[in-house]
Formats: sequence, structure tokens, C-alpha cells
Amino acid sequence: MPFPPPTVHGLTTTEGPGPARSWTVSTAKPVRYRVRFAPGVLDPRTRALARAGAPADGPAPARRLLVVEERVDLLYGDAIRASCEAGGHGEYAIHVLPAHERLKTMESVYSVVGAMDRFGLDRRREPVVAVGGGVLLDVVGLACSLYRRSTPYVRVPTTLIGLVDAGVGAKTGVNFGAGKNRLGTYHPAVETLLDPGFLATLDRRHIGNGLAEILKIALIKDRDLFDLLAGSGRRLLDARFQADEPLRTTAHHVLARAVHGMLEELHDNLWEHRLERVVDYGHSFSPTLEMRALPALLHGEAVNLDMALTTVIARNRALMTDRQSERVLAAMRALRLPVHHPLMEPELLRDALADTVRHRDGMQRLPLPVGIGDAVFVNDLTDREIALAAEELARAEEVRSDA
Amino acid sequence: MPFPPPTVHGLTTTEGPGPARSWTVSTAKPVRYRVRFAPGVLDPRTRALARAGAPADGPAPARRLLVVEERVDLLYGDAIRASCEAGGHGEYAIHVLPAHERLKTMESVYSVVGAMDRFGLDRRREPVVAVGGGVLLDVVGLACSLYRRSTPYVRVPTTLIGLVDAGVGAKTGVNFGAGKNRLGTYHPAVETLLDPGFLATLDRRHIGNGLAEILKIALIKDRDLFDLLAGSGRRLLDARFQADEPLRTTAHHVLARAVHGMLEELHDNLWEHRLERVVDYGHSFSPTLEMRALPALLHGEAVNLDMALTTVIARNRALMTDRQSERVLAAMRALRLPVHHPLMEPELLRDALADTVRHRDGMQRLPLPVGIGDAVFVNDLTDREIALAAEELARAEEVRSDA
Repeated sequence: MPFPPPTVHGLTTTEGPGPARSWTVSTAKPVRYRVRFAPGVLDPRTRALARAGAPADGPAPARRLLVVEERVDLLYGDAIRASCEAGGHGEYAIHVLPAHERLKTMESVYSVVGAMDRFGLDRRREPVVAVGGGVLLDVVGLACSLYRRSTPYVRVPTTLIGLVDAGVGAKTGVNFGAGKNRLGTYHPAVETLLDPGFLATLDRRHIGNGLAEILKIALIKDRDLFDLLAGSGRRLLDARFQADEPLRTTAHHVLARAVHGMLEELHDNLWEHRLERVVDYGHSFSPTLEMRALPALLHGEAVNLDMALTTVIARNRALMTDRQSERVLAAMRALRLPVHHPLMEPELLRDALADTVRHRDGMQRLPLPVGIGDAVFVNDLTDREIALAAEELARAEEVRSDA
Repeated sequence: MPFPPPTVHGLTTTEGPGPARSWTVSTAKPVRYRVRFAPGVLDPRTRALARAGAPADGPAPARRLLVVEERVDLLYGDAIRASCEAGGHGEYAIHVLPAHERLKTMESVYSVVGAMDRFGLDRRREPVVAVGGGVLLDVVGLACSLYRRSTPYVRVPTTLIGLVDAGVGAKTGVNFGAGKNRLGTYHPAVETLLDPGFLATLDRRHIGNGLAEILKIALIKDRDLFDLLAGSGRRLLDARFQADEPLRTTAHHVLARAVHGMLEELHDNLWEHRLERVVDYGHSFSPTLEMRALPALLHGEAVNLDMALTTVIARNRALMTDRQSERVLAAMRALRLPVHHPLMEPELLRDALADTVRHRDGMQRLPLPVGIGDAVFVNDLTDREIALAAEELARAEEVRSDA
């Protein structure tokens, strides 16, 4: 009996007289997603929420499950419900979920999965809408990634870090054991709707949390964005990005450049086939630091501590001038971001780097800033130079608090 | 300040004088994996286990974590250890895990994740090796998919259903609540090593479990494979696929055709963008049936019940002749597979179809056999014709047990 030869592109078999003994599957998973500004996203007149995730030429989904962060529900629950009522969905349900770093767990994922089960969600036609900060977006993203092996969803970030970071990439994840985002997937939302209006009700510390991620993009690839932050960052912080002209335009430029910079780096490396990623700047020591300090440090604060440390290391390596590193540290302080923390001791920094090396497949691949707005990867960081930099930052902070 | 224009293929932004307001990311995730026969996989002389998952032109991984199903460890643990010792790994660890349908849970995934953490697994260079049946492969696959958002692994199936089904596709998963495989991902092993030698120690019921999935491929796309099963299936079952010539060649043909048929259907629809899948035959009513009957029915047994039911439905619709449906039911009985179960009552069958419709995005998309070796999709199955077919099978079984 002749064995059927390979008939379709992408499946190759070994040749021979008998049946095949070896097969190779070659294929590629197409992914397409959209990130866009949608001011007034909750205003029923924009129909942004009703149409979110619908194909451009198709009708709005008939049924809608929303997962809304608890704090957001307190502030915007009525507006969300009004928008749903006006949206023309035959049926909708809102699952309210508390979310913060210590609740970034599989249990929170299960809570979302339970809501999907109870709602009787169709597998592909009823994108879930996630409304909340970065933790909530990551949790709902993971739940949707796992549910029936992939369910579409829409992100509506309500925090600054959600707008410029968690909302624009492909990563989902939860913490596990001592590991920050140890479990997760790559599953971007089909659509992310960016409405800076939510920032009006965000506390200042959480604005700073997002500014740290914007600063990251500035430091490693966008000198102009750094100049914007150095010039107007403090006013944007105080105004929570809500302002009249000309600050209003600056606010939009800052947000748009940050989103653009992130997407430029992510879009052709969405699954991290290249482990040298400039957007990993500030994310070498911070995952361990953030987990050990829980709940003391917000994610962006831990990232900033990492960036302050590596700024000093870069200066000690003459990758930056004294003046440049001073400008960077001054910008951080103006944004009320911490530049040193008592946990930044040699042992923790060593453990943190060891885990990052495992995450980057046996090499440091550590991005360091070059001047302001450029970066280089190094693999030869020593424990000693890390400890020296941490010590220098500690001393500088002491001097400042004495003054 | 001019906004940077999109510079790289795959990221498009809206045009305009100011900064972008909308971005679309278009990309594709390349996937390549290999499935091959590797008889004597545990024999150190083949070096199959030592090199598993290594690039063709690269060295064997320096370190190796294996996850071995508990029952397999009892039978093959010494051979596995001897192979590892001879394999030249600088370091290896074996994590023994019990696995069966009721342990197909996230808790089992956590057990594997804990072993990966303790081993300090590198992210990309140290593929985990999973040795066991379908449940173990699905659990380890999900753990590897989630760990650091994707870790490579190798599958060494030790059961027949593992060899022809769980070992060759891309799906991972665990049960959740009442939902069969409710949580999972698409994450194929970089390599699957097929060694039918493991079947020598498999009990006959588990051989039948795998034969049901082979029968599925035969019924919907490979008439020649059905003839092989009808002619030699019972002898293969009794001999556990271990035989001298000429049955030995038949055994290889059956396995190779089953694998080939699966891969033909999967390779260009790995992420199930098309929800009409002939390989879903036997998987429309069985997920609910299997979960409700736990632990009474093996997966393949539930699949066979589904296929028996839909064979009768197909005959009632004149898609098959009486003689064809009798041949199919006779082949099932010869393979000692159940064709009716007391749980197959109208209410359960209705619930089962409703969940499958949600899984197939609002439509039945139900594959029915056309004759033997072909299939068609229908969307108009009624509760009444399903109930009638189940009743007919129940009566036929009664008559047989009376005789």
C-alpha cells in the first residue's frame, strides 16, 4: 500500500519506500493587534466600548463580559454600566476583581475563568473587555490566553503604567512562588483603547509608577522624550496628565512617544526570540527587588531603582558623563521616584542577576544606557561594580537626607 | 518636534501632522517541530534521549530535567537513569509525577513548575523531557508553555494515545471545574520521539484507548487505515503492537498512517483558526461525557462512544449505508471499545452539544462520517435525532447482552 506523500505545504516527511519515519511541521501563527487613543472611551456617544474588539466592517458583539478592577468600579462603575446599557448588547455582565501585585496570582486568573464559564462565553466572537491597571490587564490576559486555549480580549488601561506598558505589549502573567511573572503567555489584546482621562482620578504615586516606564523608553532610545520629561515631567505628574494647552499637547506627545517607542521595540520581537531587548532596561534587578519588597514598592518604583543603579554603573564605565548621570538622577528625583532602597544589598543584587541570567538563557544580556537615549548590551558585569554603585547611591541619599 | 515615522515593517501608524493616535502590529510567530520514530529511545547507544531537543548541528544540552510519569518510573526508571548517566549531561534531575485524568489539573502543572524552579532551568537551552502518557504530556506541555512564558520541551510518549495523538499536536491543557481541557495553550514540543516498545508494558485497555484515536483518523479520512484496523486491529491489541513479521510491518503502518493523518490535518491549522476540524470527530459529545463519568471512562473510550453515536446518526441521515455502520460498530467491538454508556441520556447529550457549540463559536460544526474514510460538517443536528440514535445503541447493546 503506497503511503500518502506529503500533500500540503508545511509538512515534510522523510523519503523512503515504506511509511514515513519522521515528520517536520513548519508554520507560523499570524498575529495582528491594534493600540489606539480613545478619549472618552466610556462616553456612550463614542460607542468605543460597545464596538471594542469588533471587526471594522462587522457588528458590535451581541454579548459582552467585562472584567473591571474593584477600585475602577467604585469610580467609574456607573459610567461603565451606562455605556453597556447604551451599547446595544443583548446581554452583558460585569465581573469586579480586586487587583494589586500581591493578587497577581493564578487564583485571580481562576476568578476570571469562573466568570467566563458562568457567562457561557463563545470562544471567538465575544471578546472580554478588561478595564483596570497593569496587574488586572496581565491577569485577564492570562485567563483569556488559557480559556479554551485562547479567547480574544480588549484592554482598557486605567493607569499610566497600563497606558504605556502593560496595555501595549503581548505579555500576560502572574507571579508564582518568589518569581515575578514566572507564569505567563504572549497573548496581546485584539485592541487596546487608551483614554488618558482615567488618570484624573489616579493618585500621584501611581502616576510616578508609569512615568518610570516612560523614562525607561526615553533613556535607552528617545533623547527627545527625555528632554520632554526633564522639562515638563514634574508638571505632568502634578496635573495627572490633565491640563490646558500648551501642557496638554506635551502630555499627548509624552504618551504617544512612549507607546510608539515600546511598539517599535516589541513588534518584530513579540515572542522574545531575541533575548537582547532594550525594553528590558530597568528589568534586570527589579523583578527580585520588587518581589522581596512586596508590597512596599510599585513596579515602576522597582524599575526606577534598577535604572538608577545601572545609570551609576554606566557612568563608572564611562558610558555616560557625570553631567548626564546627574541629569538622569535629578529627573528621577523630580518625578518623586526612589533612587535607592535598603534592600539593594550585594546579596540580593547577586541573586537577582542570577535569576535574570537564567531568564536570558545563560547570559547577562544587560542593557546599559549610553549617554541619554542610546543603549548597549553587556555580559561582563561584576558583583563588585554592582555593589559599589549601590553603595554610592546609598551614600548620596544619606547626604541628601542630612542636608 | 517631528514624530518618528514607522521605520520597521509590521508596525503601521495613522498619518497626521501630530504624534500617532493609532498603531497596528502585524507579525507572525514561526513554529517548527519534529515528530519521529525513535525505537530504543532509552538505549544509551542510540543517544536519542541525550540529544533530544538539541539542534542538529549543536551539542547535547549540558543539563537535563526530565519529568517522568510515576508508573513509567516504576517500569523504566532504571533504564532512564542509565541513559541519563551515559548521556554526558553535566547534571540531570528526574521529577516523578503521578498522572491520570483526575490529576490533569493546575496543581500538577505547579508541581512541574516547582521542579523547574528548583533545577534552575535556563530559559531556552535546556529542553525539559516529558516521559509518559497523554495526560502527563499535556500537563508538562502546559507547565513549559507558562514557565517564563515559554520553555522548550521534548515529548517521549509511553502510551498508544500518546504516540498517535497527545504526542504529535500542539495542544496542552488541564481540566478546570467541569470543563475538559478548559485551560491550555498551543505549545508543541520541539521534538517528539516515538518508541512503540513502551507499549509492551501497557495494559490492554490502554491500548484500546489509543486505538480509538487511530480509528477516528481512519473513519474520517483514511479508508485504507480502517481496512488495516478491521483486519488486524484485534491482533495488534492482543499483541500490544509487539509482533514478528508480517504483523510487525502492519503495526508500523497503522502507527505511521495515524500520525501522518493527524499531522496532515493539524499542520496548517495548528492554532485552530478554522474551527471546522475533521480531527474533532468523536470530540463533540465526549468531553462532557468523559468528565461526568470520571474516572469510569478513558479518553479514547469516551471518544469511541461519541463516534458510535455519530455513526448511527450518519446512517440515519443516509451518509453511511447500514452495512458500513455495521462494519464500523463491529470493528469497535472487536477492539473492545464501548459503543454505549448509561450516561448517554438526552439531557447530558444536550448539555454536551451546547458546550461544544460555545467551543466552536456559536455553531455545531459537527463532523459526521460519510461512508468510511470521508467526512462532512453539519450544523443542523437536532436533540431528537441524537436521542433516537442513543436509544438505538442502548437497545442494540441490550439485545447483545441478552444473547
